[in-house]
Amino acid sequence: MQIGILGSGNVGGALGRRWAAAGHPVLFASREPDSPRMAALVAAAGPLARAATAAETVASSDIVLLATPWPATRDAVANLPWEGKILIDATNPLLPALAGLEFANTTSGAEQVAAWAPGARVVKAFNTIGYNIMENPTFHGAPVTLLYCGDDPAAKAAVRSLAADAGFAPEDAGRLLRARLLEPFALLWISLAMLEGYGRDIAFSLLRRNDTMVL
Amino acid sequence: MQIGILGSGNVGGALGRRWAAAGHPVLFASREPDSPRMAALVAAAGPLARAATAAETVASSDIVLLATPWPATRDAVANLPWEGKILIDATNPLLPALAGLEFANTTSGAEQVAAWAPGARVVKAFNTIGYNIMENPTFHGAPVTLLYCGDDPAAKAAVRSLAADAGFAPEDAGRLLRARLLEPFALLWISLAMLEGYGRDIAFSLLRRNDTMVL
Repeated sequence: MQIGILGSGNVGGALGRRWAAAGHPVLFASREPDSPRMAALVAAAGPLARAATAAETVASSDIVLLATPWPATRDAVANLPWEGKILIDATNPLLPALAGLEFANTTSGAEQVAAWAPGARVVKAFNTIGYNIMENPTFHGAPVTLLYCGDDPAAKAAVRSLAADAGFAPEDAGRLLRARLLEPFALLWISLAMLEGYGRDIAFSLLRRNDTMVL
Repeated sequence: MQIGILGSGNVGGALGRRWAAAGHPVLFASREPDSPRMAALVAAAGPLARAATAAETVASSDIVLLATPWPATRDAVANLPWEGKILIDATNPLLPALAGLEFANTTSGAEQVAAWAPGARVVKAFNTIGYNIMENPTFHGAPVTLLYCGDDPAAKAAVRSLAADAGFAPEDAGRLLRARLLEPFALLWISLAMLEGYGRDIAFSLLRRNDTMVL
């Protein structure tokens, strides 16, 4: 399954490397696919990775991870061949200085992204924890929770599988409108990590009363 | 330390019983302190508990837990002697059918409660999990996380101690405006538990990379 990455920063880089290491071919989109930065990223991701334009990345991929800074998101997804593609929205519509969310409560960034990428099968995922957790999703010897949501069951099943491939314990949060809750949940992680002194090495795990804890 | 409970339903009943069992005197507020329902609650909470009017409860207590259904909250807190009292806001400003929050993103229910109870030192807490978790906050042998926030450090320290007395692992989420994130976090728990098939025996625990897991 060909995976494309739109936004090859900390988040896109970490997940692209992990998915390539798990055996998936990965395309990193860039306006400058031949730049030294992209060459270094591709080299770090190994032989299954290469860089390409955004148009080629979306056209050639079955699943595309969107991991752009929020202000760049609309332009990043506009005018690409989304029809039938699975789009993993890992963005968060953060206001400057983490003051809140541009879209909240009665809509969400994910619903905006779905409107901006007509034809795409949007799944919200990988937005609720930092890139450092994506690089190592193991806490106390067990995979940490990754919540996702979306309206297309087959797309969600594919993303669930990719979350497991990246080392997470995926948990289904329901329809895409649950992004209205997953985006504030992301801002909670960000606020604790960046503003409240917890640092970035934290994660929330969803526990069930009768789980057997794997240590 | 005298504790008052405004809203003696599932949440107020569970926490009042636990605090009385932990050695705190507890007043349960009621419009009908002599009713059979209140007599049963007081009997279940033991010799440190009794029922009283809302005015007596607030006047006589150092800390008051607010655990009313959201539509009853404004009337429940209006015109009571709040000056200097610690008010634990365990409510959530839920819209009908769990469609969202009445206040979100740029304000919060907690900030509204603070405006409705002038003089009170408001701490948001005990809003993010169901009453069944309050009755038994232990998952896999360890206390589960309870996030709280507020603007008064001494009030927060008192609530932190009460959270520990109730069996939780308390975690400071910062100033009262972080209720803008703790209230959507509550709705995430509620949505998973009630709408997405997880059931009520779930909880989120905040993990640190280098924690020693207590089992």
